[in-house]
Amino acid sequence: MSRVSPAVRTLLRQPYSSQWRKTPVLRSSQAWVKPVSQPIRGLATPAAMPSASKENIGVYCNPAHDLWVKESGPSVNEVKSGEALKEGEVTIAIKSTGICGSDIHFWRHGRIGPMVVEHDHILGHESAGEIIAVHPSVKTLSVGDRVAVEPSSICNKCEPCLTGRYNGCLEMRFMSTPPVDGLLRRYVNHSAIWCHKIGDMSYEDGAMLEPLSVSLAGMHRAQIALGDPVLICGAGPIGLMTLLCSAAAGAEPIVITDIDQNRLDVAKEICPRVKTYKVEPGVSMEEAGAAMSKLAGGSLTTALECSGVESSIAAAIYSVKFGGKVFVIGVGKPDMQIPFMRLSTQEIDLQFQYRYANTWPRAIRLVQSGVLDMKRLVTHRFDLEDAVSAFETSAASAKTGAIKVLIQSP
Amino acid sequence: MSRVSPAVRTLLRQPYSSQWRKTPVLRSSQAWVKPVSQPIRGLATPAAMPSASKENIGVYCNPAHDLWVKESGPSVNEVKSGEALKEGEVTIAIKSTGICGSDIHFWRHGRIGPMVVEHDHILGHESAGEIIAVHPSVKTLSVGDRVAVEPSSICNKCEPCLTGRYNGCLEMRFMSTPPVDGLLRRYVNHSAIWCHKIGDMSYEDGAMLEPLSVSLAGMHRAQIALGDPVLICGAGPIGLMTLLCSAAAGAEPIVITDIDQNRLDVAKEICPRVKTYKVEPGVSMEEAGAAMSKLAGGSLTTALECSGVESSIAAAIYSVKFGGKVFVIGVGKPDMQIPFMRLSTQEIDLQFQYRYANTWPRAIRLVQSGVLDMKRLVTHRFDLEDAVSAFETSAASAKTGAIKVLIQSP
Amino acid sequence: MSRVSPAVRTLLRQPYSSQWRKTPVLRSSQAWVKPVSQPIRGLATPAAMPSASKENIGVYCNPAHDLWVKESGPSVNEVKSGEALKEGEVTIAIKSTGICGSDIHFWRHGRIGPMVVEHDHILGHESAGEIIAVHPSVKTLSVGDRVAVEPSSICNKCEPCLTGRYNGCLEMRFMSTPPVDGLLRRYVNHSAIWCHKIGDMSYEDGAMLEPLSVSLAGMHRAQIALGDPVLICGAGPIGLMTLLCSAAAGAEPIVITDIDQNRLDVAKEICPRVKTYKVEPGVSMEEAGAAMSKLAGGSLTTALECSGVESSIAAAIYSVKFGGKVFVIGVGKPDMQIPFMRLSTQEIDLQFQYRYANTWPRAIRLVQSGVLDMKRLVTHRFDLEDAVSAFETSAASAKTGAIKVLIQSP
Amino acid sequence: MSRVSPAVRTLLRQPYSSQWRKTPVLRSSQAWVKPVSQPIRGLATPAAMPSASKENIGVYCNPAHDLWVKESGPSVNEVKSGEALKEGEVTIAIKSTGICGSDIHFWRHGRIGPMVVEHDHILGHESAGEIIAVHPSVKTLSVGDRVAVEPSSICNKCEPCLTGRYNGCLEMRFMSTPPVDGLLRRYVNHSAIWCHKIGDMSYEDGAMLEPLSVSLAGMHRAQIALGDPVLICGAGPIGLMTLLCSAAAGAEPIVITDIDQNRLDVAKEICPRVKTYKVEPGVSMEEAGAAMSKLAGGSLTTALECSGVESSIAAAIYSVKFGGKVFVIGVGKPDMQIPFMRLSTQEIDLQFQYRYANTWPRAIRLVQSGVLDMKRLVTHRFDLEDAVSAFETSAASAKTGAIKVLIQSP
Repeated sequence: MSRVSPAVRTLLRQPYSSQWRKTPVLRSSQAWVKPVSQPIRGLATPAAMPSASKENIGVYCNPAHDLWVKESGPSVNEVKSGEALKEGEVTIAIKSTGICGSDIHFWRHGRIGPMVVEHDHILGHESAGEIIAVHPSVKTLSVGDRVAVEPSSICNKCEPCLTGRYNGCLEMRFMSTPPVDGLLRRYVNHSAIWCHKIGDMSYEDGAMLEPLSVSLAGMHRAQIALGDPVLICGAGPIGLMTLLCSAAAGAEPIVITDIDQNRLDVAKEICPRVKTYKVEPGVSMEEAGAAMSKLAGGSLTTALECSGVESSIAAAIYSVKFGGKVFVIGVGKPDMQIPFMRLSTQEIDLQFQYRYANTWPRAIRLVQSGVLDMKRLVTHRFDLEDAVSAFETSAASAKTGAIKVLIQSP
Repeated sequence: MSRVSPAVRTLLRQPYSSQWRKTPVLRSSQAWVKPVSQPIRGLATPAAMPSASKENIGVYCNPAHDLWVKESGPSVNEVKSGEALKEGEVTIAIKSTGICGSDIHFWRHGRIGPMVVEHDHILGHESAGEIIAVHPSVKTLSVGDRVAVEPSSICNKCEPCLTGRYNGCLEMRFMSTPPVDGLLRRYVNHSAIWCHKIGDMSYEDGAMLEPLSVSLAGMHRAQIALGDPVLICGAGPIGLMTLLCSAAAGAEPIVITDIDQNRLDVAKEICPRVKTYKVEPGVSMEEAGAAMSKLAGGSLTTALECSGVESSIAAAIYSVKFGGKVFVIGVGKPDMQIPFMRLSTQEIDLQFQYRYANTWPRAIRLVQSGVLDMKRLVTHRFDLEDAVSAFETSAASAKTGAIKVLIQSP
Repeated sequence: MSRVSPAVRTLLRQPYSSQWRKTPVLRSSQAWVKPVSQPIRGLATPAAMPSASKENIGVYCNPAHDLWVKESGPSVNEVKSGEALKEGEVTIAIKSTGICGSDIHFWRHGRIGPMVVEHDHILGHESAGEIIAVHPSVKTLSVGDRVAVEPSSICNKCEPCLTGRYNGCLEMRFMSTPPVDGLLRRYVNHSAIWCHKIGDMSYEDGAMLEPLSVSLAGMHRAQIALGDPVLICGAGPIGLMTLLCSAAAGAEPIVITDIDQNRLDVAKEICPRVKTYKVEPGVSMEEAGAAMSKLAGGSLTTALECSGVESSIAAAIYSVKFGGKVFVIGVGKPDMQIPFMRLSTQEIDLQFQYRYANTWPRAIRLVQSGVLDMKRLVTHRFDLEDAVSAFETSAASAKTGAIKVLIQSP
Repeated sequence: MSRVSPAVRTLLRQPYSSQWRKTPVLRSSQAWVKPVSQPIRGLATPAAMPSASKENIGVYCNPAHDLWVKESGPSVNEVKSGEALKEGEVTIAIKSTGICGSDIHFWRHGRIGPMVVEHDHILGHESAGEIIAVHPSVKTLSVGDRVAVEPSSICNKCEPCLTGRYNGCLEMRFMSTPPVDGLLRRYVNHSAIWCHKIGDMSYEDGAMLEPLSVSLAGMHRAQIALGDPVLICGAGPIGLMTLLCSAAAGAEPIVITDIDQNRLDVAKEICPRVKTYKVEPGVSMEEAGAAMSKLAGGSLTTALECSGVESSIAAAIYSVKFGGKVFVIGVGKPDMQIPFMRLSTQEIDLQFQYRYANTWPRAIRLVQSGVLDMKRLVTHRFDLEDAVSAFETSAASAKTGAIKVLIQSP
């Protein structure tokens, strides 16, 4: 465990100490943080990293809002013996995992709606890795396969499953949503069916397929097509990913909004033909909507709402024209005020999305073919042992400029 | 004008008197009101009622919330000479007109959203009648044709018009929406294209095609199909009409809600297999939604919201399952609170409707074939001269039991 | 086995004899045939019919086009011990099974497209029955439950399965399609997930849910809605079932076609407002299409093609107007001639259906609520032991007037 | 008229001579043909080309399959006086017009389906130009506006018009379809509503908006979206345009087919990630379909058929997987053989397109923003006076390598 940071090493040996998390970690790890400016491709090679050579560790949070790294299952011995694998399962050596806003939310707030952190809980659901063990029943994967992980487990029996909307599975076990542990570990057992082969795609791109799946699900359900005028509200990780998708889908014009000029600059860098709208305080939602509409030459028919903020949703509703659609990808407050009569007299549909279904094959095609290039969205990289720093960096995105922070386990 | 009530006769001769409206009309006219228990079919025959034999009168409201009947255009002379007809127009002798909630709203509140009563304004947009004059350019209609009136005029140039959603026409002139005068007159000039032949259908049924169009537009946009579980919120005129449509479309189960048990009883009479839910004060929206869902055996996928009431919409959102839809036909407050995260985590679409497009031909087919029988919805009938009583009766529906009040001009 | 016909009794004791099948069976059984004029409800009661009291028999065909009844698995002993049940499975005592055109086709022609009868093969896939044994892993069904059987087994892994179109499952095992044995047996083991509870619905109705599912899948994919003008081509079992569905869905007008006036008379009996068109030889497809269109007042937008006959499909294509749809439910020749330029210049969609997915819950709702009454479609009933006569009767429908022939096992 | 070729000049002065067309034109004009390698932008400036400075000429064909240029209406005098303009009309000085396969078909075959050349008939419907006269009733266009011409005139009254599918207008007058004269003239009067402003887009791009509209209508109706696997059959002008659109829409993978390797090379040049399939004689349609599918990794769900050839359509049907779609843009023989049972058992939709509706605004956005660059598709340019050579070049595309041939009138 020579590559583990001193702080983490201490952590792994000691019982949890709340005061530790508040002070020394960040300081001690700062020198150890190694942001990588370019994507590292092919980090893992059979020669350099024998399968299951290190103990398994995971990134935990708890109801007291602590965050730390400690030993986790399955153990190296279990991985090596394959004894913990159930029918249909494989063991993945996780190589790269992105931090999602929901991970930070579970850590800091302990819950998202009805999903509550009640025990020590492993975070992470945006991962790619290498298959290092395979149950004999699995015929579709082999040791050495490079895969992206879809963090779902479904019942195959309920109406949502049988009708192709398994994101609504009544017995969904979604990794990283309590009480189901997440993927921020060295080794994870998972059903082979949810491990999608990525060929020679980098593990970083493989990890990014999960947030890409969120955007693709939105694009699909909102039916964005060539030449559709699109408004994207919010230029955070999902907003920018949705911008990449909208540009690749030939949406035109595209307008993107945010309160942060830096993010709008990144949007412009990613898609030079995008028009940006900086949200300013004191502007009414009607005025903001009208200004967005004007930027698009009055053409807006669809808004892809990626902020989940009440005023942003209202402005989106004012921005689209008769028969338009506001498609809400972002999550937000339990209850919200909406301009009801605007929706009514303009026949505007307000639609919503919950996760995704059947997106990985499409996502893989788009990245492998080069139609989508997500690399600009990765701003920071940390080793798994230094995950706490990674979370701090991601949580402080306004200061750090973080878009997507990746945690790697080479 | 011998059949005009004394109050109206007075009214027609005198300038507007605000004190009149507040007292004598209802009393003096009460003895004159003639509710008809059975639909009167074929009121007008060429022999009994020569074309344009009486002066034209109309039902007016104004910004001071007055309501009265007075002389109106086109005049009998204009009708007889045909001189007021423009290219493509016909003159209709209006035989039957329903009172809509929006008519009452314009009278009592002076506005609906951005549409404001600023002058003396003729109400009414649910009408059928007989063609009594035809501009030479019109080839599709003849004098004597029985028609239902679609109260629209569109530009044929804007995007909504060219894409088949002319209800959103940027230059829509909708009869009875200020500043465009309505149909509550004896004679009205209108484009032939919006006069739909009704064959031997009664004028009452012909007038009812307009509210039926509202429900049909909802059925169509909400895509209600055979065997779809449907919740209908509100058992007023539009709710009951939507119930008729849902039953005829083979929706099953059907649940209908209201605060008024009498209306629920009418619902049961119209469709014996409907399940009724009486909305009670003090029940939370979650509980109400769960109870509605339970009545439907947990199957609800679509709610057709016909009340426009905030709490009803919220309950509907709690009643449908993952991937469901709440389709709002009713209109209500400018802004409303909605259970946002319920919509988000259950991927529920919230959709809206504004009037209708291309519904008359379908409506006529359904009524002529007997698939739909709307007669039970007509509870009161008044002569045109007694329109004020008709409006009072309709406005006091909780007390009068009025569902649809018709004004006739035999 | 006292109720078995002599011929069948002989059969059960003797090895297969090809000469037998060609002569004595039909004669000996003719006297034994007991057409029942009224549906028999609740044939099986726990008191009257102890579970698994008789040996299991099944209805077989083979590549030589023989059809006979003989002993089949699972055996009574296996059923009683439950030893043949796999995880998730139940044993159903089949009570009622309909004969499908495809059953007759497999018997007489030995194949349907790529699906070939290569061995002794059990027919039948339209069944309902009683649960008489349950694997301990099954929590959703109990002994005594009355169920309709969906004759599918799917992989839950392929794209069609995961996207809600499991009828296209790449590893579909469809009962009665070679090499998967069918349901025409006394006892059948099947996955609990495909056994749909029918409450107190009769087993006959329960068996009819399968052909109803075919029609419902067509209604759903063809998006038939209230007031849609519909042409139904062919008044055989599926055509008449589709007529029931179209009428219940409020389609209007409805036109149905056939070459057999008797079937058209049944159509008129089932749905008095249907318009019938008798297909006559020597009429061109253009003329036939024009005549069908005229019957519908020129309104036809959708044709539901239930005959699978080339000329009928062409006539349907000529019957619908610009932007219409011809939806093919029937199966037919491997290759067909179509009026291509008519499709092209009229922008007509030609769509197809293969079996069904997710239809049973909807079918059960519709029958239980009385929205659909399928009883008129059942014309003949035979006991399981007399299945050969049942098949002969069904195959000779032009002579026997058979619509749906049911085989019962009380 | 100094820039007119000698042959054309002769033609303009002389009565029609059938022997002329068969010999001298091509030879005499060959030296005069001036293929331009780069698009010429802004050919017309007010200074350089005063409005209506030359006599009007047009490109005619007739039932005898002659093709020639002669004087046409409206005359210069009529244009200058504006006297031939009806309400709502403008005069366009046509600057650039593309030759469509249908133009060549009308010339050479005299008919397309029910549309027959019965008199001298002006061809051309892919045009852009400058507004040089405006009827006083027109408020949306001014002299000097640069516009692309949508060659439609519709009734605004029939069901297709009112439902947004005006391409099916029952009274459609489509320019260049007999008996309505086309746009291959110097000056044309047309309704302002069908003249779409193109800003500073080149007239060549403006003319190309018409074939682009064909592809966009196909993309829209076939619902091609980001990451959809797409097969394009045929790499002619519409096939290559559809390739541009598919690439811009983020379709992936894209496979294109043709019998001509040169066209496939152009496809590869236009979209390097496209996979090409050369159609070879002697390969069965099943084999061809399987090979196309294999090229796409087995993913094909949608085929956009742009050839209209029977065997190509059949191969497309064999190429797509369960639940797929073959969308036919191309036109072909009146009747065709299709693999019916493949469509049936694989639930494949066969859809068709007829022209387009509401495509210009979208087309203009896509070209102005640079999302689409159609310049590579223009291979030859001729002056209006030399239109016969243009048609010969286009008709001989296999030899000339012509994709889109433009006729200009600077």
